[in-house]
Amino acid sequence: MTSKKLNRTQNLFSVWAPSAERIDLLLQDGASNPRRIAMRVDANGWWHAGEPKPRHGDRYAFSIDGGPARPDPRSRRQPDGVHGFSEWVSHPALPPSGTEYRPPSLADGIIYELHVGTFTPGGTFDTAAEQVPYLRELGVTHVELMPVAAASGERGWGYDGVALFAVWEAYGGPEGLARFVDRCHAEGLAVILDVVYNHLGPEGNYLAEFGPYFTDSYRTPWGMAVNLDGPDCDEVRRFILDNALMWLDDYGIDALRIDAVHALHDESAIHILEELAMAADELSRRTGRRRLLIAESDLNDPRLISPRETGGYGLDAQWSDDFHHGLHVALTGETHGYYVGFRGVADLAKSLRDVFVHDGAYSPARRRRHGRPAGNSRGYRFLAYSQNHDQVGNRARGERLEHLAGIERAKVAAAFTLLAPFVPMLFQGEEWAASAPFQYFTDHGDPDLGRAVREGRRREFRSFGWKPEEVPDPQDRSTFERSVLDWDEQSRGSHADMLAWYRALIALRRTEPDLSGCDRETASVQCDPTKGWLHLRRGSIDITAAFADGPTEVHLGAAAREWTSLLSSQSAIDVTSTGVIFPGPGVVVTKRAGIVG
Amino acid sequence: MTSKKLNRTQNLFSVWAPSAERIDLLLQDGASNPRRIAMRVDANGWWHAGEPKPRHGDRYAFSIDGGPARPDPRSRRQPDGVHGFSEWVSHPALPPSGTEYRPPSLADGIIYELHVGTFTPGGTFDTAAEQVPYLRELGVTHVELMPVAAASGERGWGYDGVALFAVWEAYGGPEGLARFVDRCHAEGLAVILDVVYNHLGPEGNYLAEFGPYFTDSYRTPWGMAVNLDGPDCDEVRRFILDNALMWLDDYGIDALRIDAVHALHDESAIHILEELAMAADELSRRTGRRRLLIAESDLNDPRLISPRETGGYGLDAQWSDDFHHGLHVALTGETHGYYVGFRGVADLAKSLRDVFVHDGAYSPARRRRHGRPAGNSRGYRFLAYSQNHDQVGNRARGERLEHLAGIERAKVAAAFTLLAPFVPMLFQGEEWAASAPFQYFTDHGDPDLGRAVREGRRREFRSFGWKPEEVPDPQDRSTFERSVLDWDEQSRGSHADMLAWYRALIALRRTEPDLSGCDRETASVQCDPTKGWLHLRRGSIDITAAFADGPTEVHLGAAAREWTSLLSSQSAIDVTSTGVIFPGPGVVVTKRAGIVG
Repeated sequence: MTSKKLNRTQNLFSVWAPSAERIDLLLQDGASNPRRIAMRVDANGWWHAGEPKPRHGDRYAFSIDGGPARPDPRSRRQPDGVHGFSEWVSHPALPPSGTEYRPPSLADGIIYELHVGTFTPGGTFDTAAEQVPYLRELGVTHVELMPVAAASGERGWGYDGVALFAVWEAYGGPEGLARFVDRCHAEGLAVILDVVYNHLGPEGNYLAEFGPYFTDSYRTPWGMAVNLDGPDCDEVRRFILDNALMWLDDYGIDALRIDAVHALHDESAIHILEELAMAADELSRRTGRRRLLIAESDLNDPRLISPRETGGYGLDAQWSDDFHHGLHVALTGETHGYYVGFRGVADLAKSLRDVFVHDGAYSPARRRRHGRPAGNSRGYRFLAYSQNHDQVGNRARGERLEHLAGIERAKVAAAFTLLAPFVPMLFQGEEWAASAPFQYFTDHGDPDLGRAVREGRRREFRSFGWKPEEVPDPQDRSTFERSVLDWDEQSRGSHADMLAWYRALIALRRTEPDLSGCDRETASVQCDPTKGWLHLRRGSIDITAAFADGPTEVHLGAAAREWTSLLSSQSAIDVTSTGVIFPGPGVVVTKRAGIVG
Repeated sequence: MTSKKLNRTQNLFSVWAPSAERIDLLLQDGASNPRRIAMRVDANGWWHAGEPKPRHGDRYAFSIDGGPARPDPRSRRQPDGVHGFSEWVSHPALPPSGTEYRPPSLADGIIYELHVGTFTPGGTFDTAAEQVPYLRELGVTHVELMPVAAASGERGWGYDGVALFAVWEAYGGPEGLARFVDRCHAEGLAVILDVVYNHLGPEGNYLAEFGPYFTDSYRTPWGMAVNLDGPDCDEVRRFILDNALMWLDDYGIDALRIDAVHALHDESAIHILEELAMAADELSRRTGRRRLLIAESDLNDPRLISPRETGGYGLDAQWSDDFHHGLHVALTGETHGYYVGFRGVADLAKSLRDVFVHDGAYSPARRRRHGRPAGNSRGYRFLAYSQNHDQVGNRARGERLEHLAGIERAKVAAAFTLLAPFVPMLFQGEEWAASAPFQYFTDHGDPDLGRAVREGRRREFRSFGWKPEEVPDPQDRSTFERSVLDWDEQSRGSHADMLAWYRALIALRRTEPDLSGCDRETASVQCDPTKGWLHLRRGSIDITAAFADGPTEVHLGAAAREWTSLLSSQSAIDVTSTGVIFPGPGVVVTKRAGIVG
């Protein structure tokens, strides 16, 4: 804890339980049975134990109205899993070196999303930290961690977190995370953390026993909705705000990626996202270091990222699924599920121009009109990606884009992701077309839940033509193991080829002034959806791509005059004085002479 | 229909039923059994009968998949009640005289809310229209009708409407409404209509058989939530938009009061309220005549009335319950139900200053922080009232303010309602302290529903100490009859006294320049909650009131210099050169000399 101790981390055993008749602190201090200490309630429904004061390493739990031991809803550590006793953590989470650090700007950034458990064979923060120099050298500026809050079992994506203030033991607990953040900062990389506030996982969620954390006024696809605007929601909102501030302040994390904000149902006059943004801004001011909030949103609503002066929530950025979907459909021709209604090249072009493909138009997947124009929202407010944990992992078998579309098209995807006027984000291993899939894996302790997840997964994909035995069993350890990256393959054959392609694109983005930042205003797009080509111009730089299987001739006329090729996804692409001739799918990056870039 | 026929009112039997396998038009053209005509579906799920064309007066219904006859969801008339056949209405609803009419401005307006069924003993539009000259002469500028859409039975408040495009037969049907609007316009009065889009009534609601009009993603206190953002919601939203446009355009109504907008659950990027406001503005532009939308909202969120350029929905005004609650508690000392946490004089002062009493502070009734500051929202965006159908009628026995607090305090309420920098709204009969209560009455045909409503009402008030037999039976005709105004009493005793007081206050508001409009910026408030007085200054005009039972001395010092009394709620109030001495509850309106008003 720094000297500027936040009053949310009192040195006192405390818990909010507004309806309890009695709360006992159960303190495990050596004896075989924990000591039971009656707590006292204050006017706000918070229970406190005056003595003893908590000490680092204390194991404790709470008993509600004489019931069984329950972990602290704000536990910082669950050494024996989410059902067990909590452990008090009071030492400084973040080593001092972090204080000198200045984060890179998101507008000039490149994000790399990783899952601690599968990023390295070791599967921990410490083994992940060993690859941080690799990421820096690759040219990445921001590392985004999939959720690390404690969830049931030893492995999982992290969206089943239930102890939201605790860092998963399987990854290395609080100290592991602090060391990882420190290592990133030492290498000049910022850290983004994925946080889930719209639901809790299905196993080990004891919050409802303590208070009205949930509501049945709304529904989410993943379980009970969090109570953000019902009676007694103030403390639930405080729980979320304090959680965000813990990551940002105590762990020194630079930004939060807020999962599925469309499932944060809140009709109060100040939306929880606006309140989070105000809290992050206040922390930034107080510490002189900028912290960011990035939304995963399928609302296509610029209100999230609009400034608060114009009625927005003032978040810093949001994910842009429409860019992904347009690009993915252009490359794979897939049109099932949420790709229904995406038209490939034409919609990739629209997303490059307007950000949202659905900006008021009918969305067949939603069976309604959807979204509103992004207007003049800045390009750095949108993250562009051709792959991420969801887009890869929510497939039946977790195939990466290259597995589906081949390496030539994956190279085209990389070019648009890394050269578009948005903030690029890569998914672990994408840069070498990793052979490992990213499959859906869980480790629920409750066998009924395990079975339900397995069968739910099979049922989900049956409608897409998958037989049950073809869908990997999430509970099977081998599903997890298959998803672990193989770093040794990086130097081999097409993997090495792909890695070189990514390095070249990243280097170009980072060195070519016309590609730096995310200036939407100076970008322009031409395309021919029938012939299957698209041309993106950013200042002196042109990115021209063909998506079709056969040869494609792109005529650009005078627009192509005096240009020279900078990068080409394959040597057989012919750059002429009036356009480009592609033998098949590919992309070429050119620079026009006489234009000061 | 005017020559500028809207394409939403096609001259064709049509109905939206996207999941139906078959729809038959049942046309009652003389024969004892209706003729059955198969309809054809288009790509949007609309079914049409090519022949015959509908004629004025045709009785018709639809049969879904061979099922029983159902009324048209967009029926303009239900001559035999909400369960029966619909009647085609194709003649001009609004007589031509309406076209010359120019509406009064809301900022200079005074609204009069009335319930057609109880406003006059006749209980129809035509008998209500006979009192329009009285309203004009009283000084009212806007007549607000409680809902008139067809609901079950012959009497009710109107919030149980199920045929939202039909005008209740009990009131006189479509022609009756058209004649009423015309009479108001001829007398220079604007008409506001209360519309309910957040739920439908419990009896005669067949919409769900036609399409996904409802959703279980959200809950409302009154039944299924309307599907505003789920699959196939576009047509449901169109249904609402067309309904609003029908009242505003076909009937020439000047403004809609949208019931309980906090129950319009819509998380899409363009909220239905914003879409309604855009449609009303477009109609205003097209016709050269301003139409307004006024929200009933308990959100305390200025977004509703903020301009769309700053992220608001752009509605014209909203009801201000906080003003009412502050005033009501100051006058009655009641603190139960939603009055919990209101502090009387202090909160009346806050509402006069800031509009919202809960602008981010904790609301005990909601058990959470509530609202956000109204900021510099203009005063004419808020309606102020000391009584309305809800505040009177939602009491166990429907008592008016004067019944509860006596005539002296009711006079104080009138002064603040009519002289505050908001748009005043009166409730029928308030101006003569009518003896009739406004009780909750219904006329459901389904005996089980009738019983449920009766018992629900008793249960609701049991917690406030009412015995079951003390709570009037909503289904009993005498409950309705008790609520009918007695116009003969106007000229008698304290009724005449009160009417004179209202006339004087209205005349003052309409003639004194410092009271015209709703200028919040030039208003200032002082109060002493302990002694129970409040002083509101608007330019050269001071309104000083005492709320306590005993004598109250208000010292204003130099602020009171050279003032003269304009109006006094009783003669025993002593206006001195330094303040006012009240013998008991009362109010005095004074004007300072040397100030050009």
